[in-house]
Amino acid sequence: MTESGTTVDIKALLRAQHIETPSWAYGNSGTRFKVFAQQGVPRDPYEKIADAAQVHLFTGVAPTVALHIPWDRVDDYADLARHAREAGVGIGAINSNVFQDDDYMLGSVTHPDARVRRKAIGHLLECVDIMDETGSDTLKLWFSDGINYPGQDDIRARQDRLAEALDEVYARLGPSQRFLLEYKLFEPAFYATDVPDWGTAYAHCLRLGPKAQVVVDTGHHAPGTNIEFIVAFLLREGKLGGFDFNSRFYADDDLMVGAADPFQLFRIMYEVVRGGGYSADVAFMLDQCHNIEPKIPGQIRSVMNVQEATAKALLVDRAALAAAQSAGDVLGANAVLMDAYNTDVRPLLAELREEMSLHPDPMGAYAASGYGAKIVAERVGGAQAGWGA
Amino acid sequence: MTESGTTVDIKALLRAQHIETPSWAYGNSGTRFKVFAQQGVPRDPYEKIADAAQVHLFTGVAPTVALHIPWDRVDDYADLARHAREAGVGIGAINSNVFQDDDYMLGSVTHPDARVRRKAIGHLLECVDIMDETGSDTLKLWFSDGINYPGQDDIRARQDRLAEALDEVYARLGPSQRFLLEYKLFEPAFYATDVPDWGTAYAHCLRLGPKAQVVVDTGHHAPGTNIEFIVAFLLREGKLGGFDFNSRFYADDDLMVGAADPFQLFRIMYEVVRGGGYSADVAFMLDQCHNIEPKIPGQIRSVMNVQEATAKALLVDRAALAAAQSAGDVLGANAVLMDAYNTDVRPLLAELREEMSLHPDPMGAYAASGYGAKIVAERVGGAQAGWGA
Amino acid sequence: MTESGTTVDIKALLRAQHIETPSWAYGNSGTRFKVFAQQGVPRDPYEKIADAAQVHLFTGVAPTVALHIPWDRVDDYADLARHAREAGVGIGAINSNVFQDDDYMLGSVTHPDARVRRKAIGHLLECVDIMDETGSDTLKLWFSDGINYPGQDDIRARQDRLAEALDEVYARLGPSQRFLLEYKLFEPAFYATDVPDWGTAYAHCLRLGPKAQVVVDTGHHAPGTNIEFIVAFLLREGKLGGFDFNSRFYADDDLMVGAADPFQLFRIMYEVVRGGGYSADVAFMLDQCHNIEPKIPGQIRSVMNVQEATAKALLVDRAALAAAQSAGDVLGANAVLMDAYNTDVRPLLAELREEMSLHPDPMGAYAASGYGAKIVAERVGGAQAGWGA
Amino acid sequence: MTESGTTVDIKALLRAQHIETPSWAYGNSGTRFKVFAQQGVPRDPYEKIADAAQVHLFTGVAPTVALHIPWDRVDDYADLARHAREAGVGIGAINSNVFQDDDYMLGSVTHPDARVRRKAIGHLLECVDIMDETGSDTLKLWFSDGINYPGQDDIRARQDRLAEALDEVYARLGPSQRFLLEYKLFEPAFYATDVPDWGTAYAHCLRLGPKAQVVVDTGHHAPGTNIEFIVAFLLREGKLGGFDFNSRFYADDDLMVGAADPFQLFRIMYEVVRGGGYSADVAFMLDQCHNIEPKIPGQIRSVMNVQEATAKALLVDRAALAAAQSAGDVLGANAVLMDAYNTDVRPLLAELREEMSLHPDPMGAYAASGYGAKIVAERVGGAQAGWGA
Repeated sequence: MTESGTTVDIKALLRAQHIETPSWAYGNSGTRFKVFAQQGVPRDPYEKIADAAQVHLFTGVAPTVALHIPWDRVDDYADLARHAREAGVGIGAINSNVFQDDDYMLGSVTHPDARVRRKAIGHLLECVDIMDETGSDTLKLWFSDGINYPGQDDIRARQDRLAEALDEVYARLGPSQRFLLEYKLFEPAFYATDVPDWGTAYAHCLRLGPKAQVVVDTGHHAPGTNIEFIVAFLLREGKLGGFDFNSRFYADDDLMVGAADPFQLFRIMYEVVRGGGYSADVAFMLDQCHNIEPKIPGQIRSVMNVQEATAKALLVDRAALAAAQSAGDVLGANAVLMDAYNTDVRPLLAELREEMSLHPDPMGAYAASGYGAKIVAERVGGAQAGWGA
Repeated sequence: MTESGTTVDIKALLRAQHIETPSWAYGNSGTRFKVFAQQGVPRDPYEKIADAAQVHLFTGVAPTVALHIPWDRVDDYADLARHAREAGVGIGAINSNVFQDDDYMLGSVTHPDARVRRKAIGHLLECVDIMDETGSDTLKLWFSDGINYPGQDDIRARQDRLAEALDEVYARLGPSQRFLLEYKLFEPAFYATDVPDWGTAYAHCLRLGPKAQVVVDTGHHAPGTNIEFIVAFLLREGKLGGFDFNSRFYADDDLMVGAADPFQLFRIMYEVVRGGGYSADVAFMLDQCHNIEPKIPGQIRSVMNVQEATAKALLVDRAALAAAQSAGDVLGANAVLMDAYNTDVRPLLAELREEMSLHPDPMGAYAASGYGAKIVAERVGGAQAGWGA
Repeated sequence: MTESGTTVDIKALLRAQHIETPSWAYGNSGTRFKVFAQQGVPRDPYEKIADAAQVHLFTGVAPTVALHIPWDRVDDYADLARHAREAGVGIGAINSNVFQDDDYMLGSVTHPDARVRRKAIGHLLECVDIMDETGSDTLKLWFSDGINYPGQDDIRARQDRLAEALDEVYARLGPSQRFLLEYKLFEPAFYATDVPDWGTAYAHCLRLGPKAQVVVDTGHHAPGTNIEFIVAFLLREGKLGGFDFNSRFYADDDLMVGAADPFQLFRIMYEVVRGGGYSADVAFMLDQCHNIEPKIPGQIRSVMNVQEATAKALLVDRAALAAAQSAGDVLGANAVLMDAYNTDVRPLLAELREEMSLHPDPMGAYAASGYGAKIVAERVGGAQAGWGA
Repeated sequence: MTESGTTVDIKALLRAQHIETPSWAYGNSGTRFKVFAQQGVPRDPYEKIADAAQVHLFTGVAPTVALHIPWDRVDDYADLARHAREAGVGIGAINSNVFQDDDYMLGSVTHPDARVRRKAIGHLLECVDIMDETGSDTLKLWFSDGINYPGQDDIRARQDRLAEALDEVYARLGPSQRFLLEYKLFEPAFYATDVPDWGTAYAHCLRLGPKAQVVVDTGHHAPGTNIEFIVAFLLREGKLGGFDFNSRFYADDDLMVGAADPFQLFRIMYEVVRGGGYSADVAFMLDQCHNIEPKIPGQIRSVMNVQEATAKALLVDRAALAAAQSAGDVLGANAVLMDAYNTDVRPLLAELREEMSLHPDPMGAYAASGYGAKIVAERVGGAQAGWGA
């Protein structure tokens, strides 16, 4: 909490929290071995938005939904945005996709062939058009580009090509638009990825200017990486644009955020709060796959997990912490942090929800709502949405 | 080399090497993000075997091809085996697949529901039937079974179910049949996998008896795992059944064997040779994905990589090594091993190939053969083979 | 909790918990870069035991202290045991040390030289003598043996030597004595460790018989290893002898247990409870280094962390969990586990302590006791205990 | 090779190679468990330099030796430099040490206490004085600073303190002096290290200016990190100052460079060559521990390993590589790289040595020289050099 923090203050901060859910979380997803289809999943972007609206309806803190192009391509984006507004949510970040066209087998913006690079840049510019049409202010750039074998392509030349592409997209951004550059250690490239770590993303964003920032996907690091350090560092540099939240035990497992290491999530949220990032500028976005669990409840649970970690982070007695730290009291300082973490914040959040005219138990309330059964019954026929559609 | 080893002896051993290629390596494969289709890939098991035969034609050491059921399901397995023989190869291991049916979302032989377990066991028994029909003596069992979230299922109960299934399959094996149990750290399960490490596979195989052995997939370990130690240990226990070769920089990347860490491959082959495993009993199988490189050349290169590592392992001066080891001469002993590794064995292998009436340069010879162009031209229409078909 | 579990039952179980602290945690420790000496640390085994007694005095659940030979070598072990009893604690496991004599540079029981092996075995047998003299029933065997360079020694021959040594020590054990074999991925050996993983320890223990069991040090695994799986598996096989608790973010960091990933500690304790291991047979031992924090408070906090994780594990509604698991309710089953984990058990434990006539806040009570200041004042001069003495 | 490269050109480049050995490699080193002393190790900086001169004498490419302060503190640095010159070597980088004074338990330049920070900065400035006295142009800064427990200190405030210290040292550098900032994932700090990755070091160096560059220690990364990518990236940014070479299987094992993954070393050297870093500006330094192998031969072997990797990197047919890369020929491009790697360059290097009037076999020649026996006989009494002295 702020040094003068009280439960009232904390609740005000939590009430204002904004966690964005991704349209693709409502469709089918899986591994390279199998995508298990689930009943009732959306067939089009409109249905995805309808599902996202449910998550906001029951949690009160998920007011926007991110789109993924081309998976969410529609003829009339203004209409889609209107549909979202009517459902009670807004359009969030636009996510580009330059990894599924057959041309991109060896790369998109870093491909050795200028024609392919041109095509990829064209797609990125189209995404900015869609931002204009939907009112979205954030473009999320993830490049799966990389190589599988040593020697396959020139690592450094690919950086030159990447820089060129980023320059062009950056130049196209409107005055109130930004892009977030994502990094990822590996997958789908298995030897060298072109934006493999925060340092690479940071260096490019720094060169470009204030409208380019780094997005931290919590599943995109090497084993042992201290993510909260990166968060603290990027905040200090003014370059933390937001999060793609999910959790992992191994690689980019894309499990529900908070499911694998809730203490890590708390530490991350603490650094966000401590570094002044708890504001509209640092976007809290979910990016995960519900391969085996139902989609909407999976999103609700994830939103709640972020909320709980945030509440605990806000509860940290920062004055006591600072005092113990400056005294070199190792155990005392650690204890201040752990006291907040060990607190059961579920009663506080239940209370908050009631103040927000929400049911205190979002999971139970959603289950009782009948929405899940309704979509299973109604969404028959058509092609289910997934990563390929 | 054996203590009395000579180049002649080494060539004799190399000439007798038997590396099995997998039918699925000839079809399309990819990541969860995208499968990039390639021109000319097989449409059915017959075409896959034809491609596998090319690898043997140019390398001389790939005389069998492994099948994967149901991907290679045919009406008449005897006919498929005949086709293989005519093409110059034999049918190798039968690989079961209990991970792609919709019923297997929460597991196959370890699923909480007895009906699903029954179905999975039924498939495994069918694979033994196919062994009977094709004359295959080896069943490879990989279970993707596991859970994504703590608490999702009972870890120990799943072991009980696994044991039951293995018992039933083991009992069905004929007198000259065996199964190899594969382990894998993670993917597609992301919290707990039911056979995650060699210790688990070993414990089950030990209980079952001599017809159950462990197969080491070189891409299925935690970072930092010393694979050659496992090889040495399993050989000492008489429980090393074979290898699924591939290479990785990160997780189960399934790159060409020898591409990521050729020194590791050499060390593995050295332990095989040293432990007496260089014989028909320890199966050398490839199991990899050629996501972006052409399939047949990818297999040829992989076979050559295993061959080169084997040649180097056979070149180790074991008498000199033993002397340095027993003297506690750290640098001297390491140097003996490195001398063999640093040797360029390509001339030796070129010579061997000429003695085997093969072209000394398999990659070049295949490229010059026109087979690649031929299949691109001929294999038009139909459904390309991949992991799903 | 057991299916009929109540708070009363849980408290009874917690009251009976037995967490062993290690004598070496009270001395100085550090990294290869520096050992920072602390004021007031013990100069001999008697003072270490006095400190261990403080931990028990304030927590009520740390009634024994493990010894480490030769660090705790005394002339009269019966006298040391008597001193411990008078201080209110007992002697726990005897830990052997075959890694610090100059002879052990290239190994102890697996050394290429039979003379060194003989010496190492001699030390292990001496430890059994000390068990006889102190009444300890558990010998803990950790072998740092391994090699730094490929080829340095023969991996398999070292297993043969290891097996011989274990045979001899096993044969020496009395009817109510056992040994626990520890495994560790790496450090101080950096290429191949002779007992690197649970599978290796398990295989040796299985061959030996019921008096040989595996001990799980929670910091000794490769990144990504699922430790609770190993716990569940070893319990199923009757081969889990106990734990060396500590925590780590990277390698064998030896931080306070529960400090790095408290959720993992909870999952481990849940598998212990679920697998019937919550009894005298599975030893809960701490093995960690307090490099920068004060020693006694570090141990108290660690004991409390294990206690809290245990309380949460006992709180799991196992009937509800089993129901959700067998229904395939992924989110529901996970939620049952998380409900227990998210509970703040500190009030329950404070209550328990008061019932046990202890101060509800062990850290505060110890700080207020003046013991810390007393030992700083009294323990002046002499050689401070550390890993080398 | 350069596109017009010939064996003559390659030999000229190899002849000019400059690999620096570290004074501390000649003293004793070990792990936290034990430092095994070796006979004949130096007792003072003069003897260390004498040993380093032997490495140059037999390899011809190790003309400088790095110092470590305070381990190499002497009264008269000009005299030490003169001694080095007479022995045939020069003084290389000055390595600072702010991790062994008792004051640094909780940090040095990032310590919460300004007095400790002042003291640490004082030491760094003293190192620049020593640069002036010895003529060294490079200061190497490694900060072990970090924290072991979440909350122990404020991650971001520590960055502020680090920046202040770097500012002051940077300002003190003379016109032809630079400093290299080292990063390391962990050890001795086990939760958060203040300069944990290249991104952090890069960001600080970028802010400071051209006299601040990043040094890549090949053992300081998270598992799976692609080091050659970092090399290529830093070269592109003009921020690669040099290497601390060593190798590792697990963590910062500090084994001989090239011993664990020679293919990785080759890939690193290839990126150096390709990126124009094969020049005086990118320093090739060794930084490793010979815990169990003899020191001088360990250094000779390491120098040879770097030399072999360099030779292979120079042999890469860059024109053929570029052609295959731009054609998108995955296997072809990889094959060009592998051809160079698979070449046995030992004959080429033997030839080069003879042209340089050196024995073609440095290891054998050193062994035959009697120097090893001489120092064992002569260096009796006195305190052996190690990390603490």
